[in-house]
Amino acid sequence: MCLFVYNLIEVITLKVMHIGDLHIGRTINQHSLLDDQEYLLKKLVNKIDELNIELLIIAGDIYDRSLPSKESVLLFETFVKMVNIERKIPILAVSGNHDGAERLGYGKSWFKTHDFYISTEIEDSFQPITYESVDFYLIPYIEPVEARFYFNDDMITTHASAYEAIISKIEEKMDRTKFNIVVSHLFIQGGNESDSERPLTLGAVEHVPQSLFNMFDYVALGHLHHPFAIQSENVSYSGSLMKYSFSEVNQPKGFRMLEIYGEIKNSFIPLAPLRDMAVIEGSFQDVYDEAYASSFQHDYMRMVLTDMRHINDPMTKLKQLYPNLLELRHADDLKAEETSAVTIVEQGDIEIMNLFSTELTGEMLSAEQLKTVARLHKGDEDIATD
Amino acid sequence: MCLFVYNLIEVITLKVMHIGDLHIGRTINQHSLLDDQEYLLKKLVNKIDELNIELLIIAGDIYDRSLPSKESVLLFETFVKMVNIERKIPILAVSGNHDGAERLGYGKSWFKTHDFYISTEIEDSFQPITYESVDFYLIPYIEPVEARFYFNDDMITTHASAYEAIISKIEEKMDRTKFNIVVSHLFIQGGNESDSERPLTLGAVEHVPQSLFNMFDYVALGHLHHPFAIQSENVSYSGSLMKYSFSEVNQPKGFRMLEIYGEIKNSFIPLAPLRDMAVIEGSFQDVYDEAYASSFQHDYMRMVLTDMRHINDPMTKLKQLYPNLLELRHADDLKAEETSAVTIVEQGDIEIMNLFSTELTGEMLSAEQLKTVARLHKGDEDIATD
Repeated sequence: MCLFVYNLIEVITLKVMHIGDLHIGRTINQHSLLDDQEYLLKKLVNKIDELNIELLIIAGDIYDRSLPSKESVLLFETFVKMVNIERKIPILAVSGNHDGAERLGYGKSWFKTHDFYISTEIEDSFQPITYESVDFYLIPYIEPVEARFYFNDDMITTHASAYEAIISKIEEKMDRTKFNIVVSHLFIQGGNESDSERPLTLGAVEHVPQSLFNMFDYVALGHLHHPFAIQSENVSYSGSLMKYSFSEVNQPKGFRMLEIYGEIKNSFIPLAPLRDMAVIEGSFQDVYDEAYASSFQHDYMRMVLTDMRHINDPMTKLKQLYPNLLELRHADDLKAEETSAVTIVEQGDIEIMNLFSTELTGEMLSAEQLKTVARLHKGDEDIATD
Repeated sequence: MCLFVYNLIEVITLKVMHIGDLHIGRTINQHSLLDDQEYLLKKLVNKIDELNIELLIIAGDIYDRSLPSKESVLLFETFVKMVNIERKIPILAVSGNHDGAERLGYGKSWFKTHDFYISTEIEDSFQPITYESVDFYLIPYIEPVEARFYFNDDMITTHASAYEAIISKIEEKMDRTKFNIVVSHLFIQGGNESDSERPLTLGAVEHVPQSLFNMFDYVALGHLHHPFAIQSENVSYSGSLMKYSFSEVNQPKGFRMLEIYGEIKNSFIPLAPLRDMAVIEGSFQDVYDEAYASSFQHDYMRMVLTDMRHINDPMTKLKQLYPNLLELRHADDLKAEETSAVTIVEQGDIEIMNLFSTELTGEMLSAEQLKTVARLHKGDEDIATD
């Protein structure tokens, strides 16, 4: 009997909600999504109550911009107040590449006295936050240059080497008798990008290999907007709060729930948005039809149409039928763009620079100029990958 | 013996530092004062230790702009961390007219769980914060239009009527057996303005009569930068952290200390800045002199000079001798400006509009136009005073 009680106490039981990529303040073609975001954040609070969630993880990109609007700040504050002040649920958050780390970090010394942790700099990564004998390590989005400076190590030139240095330092002191969970915001090797993550670098320089996290029981990530961007039992993205670009039109959106009962069980729970998203391709005649339009009244729309060269102000006409039409493209224009995009992906770096210069000046680079570019490119590789 | 102990406990003993008008992020002619502000804020922390201060009042205008720079936010955060987190000293703050109330209010629900109170809206005024049986009422800077909306009262068109409505509501519930102290940011009737308070309205519409606060034991204010802007035993301005315009060149700067031992004793304690401020008037020949300049090496300088029309780039020349020269004016230009300023002060509102229009268009208003202006001015008086 006594042993039975002892076991009951020792088994870790913790129910965690994992969200990320809220991108509060995001706009699509100048259209604010604040209403949609408010709607979904309230839904999350309801889910927290309904599922008896005991801890909330926010895996970065809380805001869409480093200097969020007043309205965005108020919306986020209202959300975390409902969770952390009103419900006394601990929050573990990291800053993402879209967040301004310094501004997001404002007040964190006070927040943590109330179990609301925001990790915004490398230094914040090393001291785990412990709940129910689970150690959570909160590693914010880190630029290689920050890690190079922090560790005073010139060899750190990629995201992989930056996170490797951080993980090594964590591993020096980590308690392996506990569950160890990493919360971070990064592009793990093998994940699939959509248009919204704003890739600033070409190629795979941003990738961080999954093997770095082998010593951890679980990795809760933000950055990629697809909740199934990686297929792994102990690494997962929450996915974004909602569809933030038309390339995400077919992605499920919602949150992840971790149930830690001796082992970690994780599940994805979809959330229906205020307005869904749809992409239509066809001719102007096809879509300029009240009956057809009736099923898209509440959706954010992108249309790729043929046969509209002769239509005067097609956007205004279509908006009468599709009130949430956000993007209208002519099929021919799009085709040209796609072709040129494909071309670039197939080029090497020097060729891309040549194309770029040609685009600007109208003339190809000379052999000598090409050599200079190649020399500079080699020398500045270090800078170029940051 | 027993009675003696009883009395000891009942006497209120509280040592309070009252500062205000920090204007963090202020610039003078594009020159950042952040270094100077950091220096003084550190000095304040030393004074807190030295004087055993138990509570800090910040009477508004924490920042100079509603959207403060990242560096300004970090400086303020560092200061309040040293006071409230490291020393566990309670902070009672209100927002001023320069602060963006919503942004400044971010996080206040968490801050207050750690005895750091920031009042940024009317609603925050009514619940007193109690220390050692002193009730502190924190009333932020309020625009008449906010109070008109909050109290749903169209008669509120001035600052006086706005604060009257707030004070009346406070008085309904205040505990008169306690010491009652107001912290606010306003222009009390009888105070003297300097150039820095950025007067947006003409005349006395911003004034709030001192008699409004008759029921309170003490009023700790911000807004006017002169610490002796009002001569009163139970109403005082802290004055600004440092000299923020050349019109403040002769003002003492520092902080106030309140000692509450059964009664309230208040004293002004000056703080020497990193760099002082000086205004020199004279001829270019007089000041372009190394020996003369030697005593102004560390001062922020304004010079009003005669005889420099023929000097090529006098600013650059003088800056070699006066590294902190921030403003250089020709005496003649200044005289012309002062004359026109005097003229305006002596005009009525309609005449000022006529002058303004003449300045813009080159022509005086016609009799008919003047009548229209007078009519509009009368009708919109309500709006004009906000």
